[in-house]
Amino acid sequence: MTLIMSRPGSSDAVTEVSLRIEEFFARMQTMALPLGRRYAELWGAARLSSEGGKRFRPALVIDAYHALGGAHDDVITVATAFELLHTAFLLHDDVIDGDTTRRGRPNLAGTFTTRATERGVSAKSAEDWGAASAILAGDLLIHAAQAHIARLEISATRRSALLDLIEETMFVTAAGELADVAFATGVEVPELAESLSMTQWKTAHYSFQAPLLAGAILAGASDETLRALSEFGHQIGIAFQLRDDVLGVYGAEHLTGKSTSSDLHTGKMTPMMCYALQHDDDGELRNALALGVVTDRDACRVRALLERNGARAFTENLIDDCTRIASAALASPAVPASLRQHLDRVASAARERVS
Amino acid sequence: MTLIMSRPGSSDAVTEVSLRIEEFFARMQTMALPLGRRYAELWGAARLSSEGGKRFRPALVIDAYHALGGAHDDVITVATAFELLHTAFLLHDDVIDGDTTRRGRPNLAGTFTTRATERGVSAKSAEDWGAASAILAGDLLIHAAQAHIARLEISATRRSALLDLIEETMFVTAAGELADVAFATGVEVPELAESLSMTQWKTAHYSFQAPLLAGAILAGASDETLRALSEFGHQIGIAFQLRDDVLGVYGAEHLTGKSTSSDLHTGKMTPMMCYALQHDDDGELRNALALGVVTDRDACRVRALLERNGARAFTENLIDDCTRIASAALASPAVPASLRQHLDRVASAARERVS
Repeated sequence: MTLIMSRPGSSDAVTEVSLRIEEFFARMQTMALPLGRRYAELWGAARLSSEGGKRFRPALVIDAYHALGGAHDDVITVATAFELLHTAFLLHDDVIDGDTTRRGRPNLAGTFTTRATERGVSAKSAEDWGAASAILAGDLLIHAAQAHIARLEISATRRSALLDLIEETMFVTAAGELADVAFATGVEVPELAESLSMTQWKTAHYSFQAPLLAGAILAGASDETLRALSEFGHQIGIAFQLRDDVLGVYGAEHLTGKSTSSDLHTGKMTPMMCYALQHDDDGELRNALALGVVTDRDACRVRALLERNGARAFTENLIDDCTRIASAALASPAVPASLRQHLDRVASAARERVS
Repeated sequence: MTLIMSRPGSSDAVTEVSLRIEEFFARMQTMALPLGRRYAELWGAARLSSEGGKRFRPALVIDAYHALGGAHDDVITVATAFELLHTAFLLHDDVIDGDTTRRGRPNLAGTFTTRATERGVSAKSAEDWGAASAILAGDLLIHAAQAHIARLEISATRRSALLDLIEETMFVTAAGELADVAFATGVEVPELAESLSMTQWKTAHYSFQAPLLAGAILAGASDETLRALSEFGHQIGIAFQLRDDVLGVYGAEHLTGKSTSSDLHTGKMTPMMCYALQHDDDGELRNALALGVVTDRDACRVRALLERNGARAFTENLIDDCTRIASAALASPAVPASLRQHLDRVASAARERVS
């Protein structure tokens, strides 16, 4: 997705995060070698998993920090922690979903599975090996992310606030992931409100709210600033994910790089879909989904039904509402004008993006 | 397993660890409720996963700490961290091995799978749900363990040393787990030395070495004491696991609570098995394993072969050697006599235990 242009002056810092991540993985890979060739390969593959992202979470950490007067290198460490945590979440999310590709190429589990198969291992064992490897890589990165925060040599108060934040982030994101799996497996059939909560827990918190708060806490921002950024992050995170859901069904595949049938095929219970099912008075949508969304024609039909019963428009309106509330939160005098302007651009990008 | 009797005076502290763990899970479960009923259930099940263990890692932390003159409540926090990490490892180990029971009852994944099936979810989806739940619970506990260490209000030097230790523990244990999976899936065929390394990485480090070192670091022990405890933990950890391997094939099932066929059935590449395969001159063992160890008679035959080609005796000798080296490490004047006596008893128990 093309989303966030760093504030002027922040892009060097984001580059530095990428270098720091590279250094981290290179060091780990070297340290891993005495513990087995496969272990060094695991770290090498984990390094690849962290590449190709837009680093927009680090950018938010850095943007908030600089705009609020922070001027220390520690911000690179905190931003690095968020990117490592993001990589860990992607790794485990893929294992949980049984996905073996990510960003158009084999993910860690996929790579390890293929390599094992090439070595003559049976398909089932190779898959187990791939999944185990991805679980362990994620574990290591969850730990590494927190280690980056725990080792900051800053005041006890700020370190403690950052530890609280990353703890809350783990706690909330795991809740969101669990809810997502509950919906996907049919353990729960969500109402609209539950699907919206899941969106906030699984994505908005760790992708928007927490990075902004982390930068602000590190800069010693006031409680009022933290409240404003928290509200902004909360709302814009939901808008971002809702836009993702719309693009997942109506986007241009050549821009998003994602199939616009796969969410429909897997029956993903997005807020848009929940709304649609709650307004499926004649049962046509239920019927269409029950028959399975396999062909392009099936997908077209479901798209038309979501449009007809107002689910698409409802979602677009919700995106507008969230974006508006997000921007309103920035009106607080506790948010410096330069940060407000920048985050307003972030908000527009989240609302209007096409990829 | 019956292994470790706490030092006199330590058992109250171990009880306190259990209370602290209970409190932790109760708090998390309460906090989880607003994030969904299933999430609260996840924390409830994670709490059950932490029950039923012998708390021998916390006991080692506390024993070392008290014997080295420590007298602060922080040790309870550090000991709690090790037990939470242990629970996390068990949770992920079970997912990786596809196991749905632990300590004779359904584990977290097993419980969640069954509950989903009862709610009418298909078998495949219920299994996915169980595995996802266990992955997330493990993630949360990996994080929680480290949070306990990161939040200690102790000198920067000691906190940093403890953070180093828990980081190394994650790093080494993941390497051991990866090697174990590589052997189990046939991605690697281990030589004896590699199987022994795996034993050390996967079990000895986090179960013996690290808990002793953690207690010692927190008590401000000298480098010489740390070296002695590290060597003791390393050796006795290997002896402990080798005994486990022997009991897994020759133990009394009514005492160990484990089947003495399952390691043979899954072809577990323990050091004993690696030795046996390296001395399988007439190929009889290979043939027997290739036919599969299914019936009691198959298992009996393999047991006899391991005995005949010296693998059992080799393992018993190795246990003796490791225990002797472990005890010799304690001879250092840097280890107080009371700790030496206690750890000598721990060593004897590890060597001679029958369950």
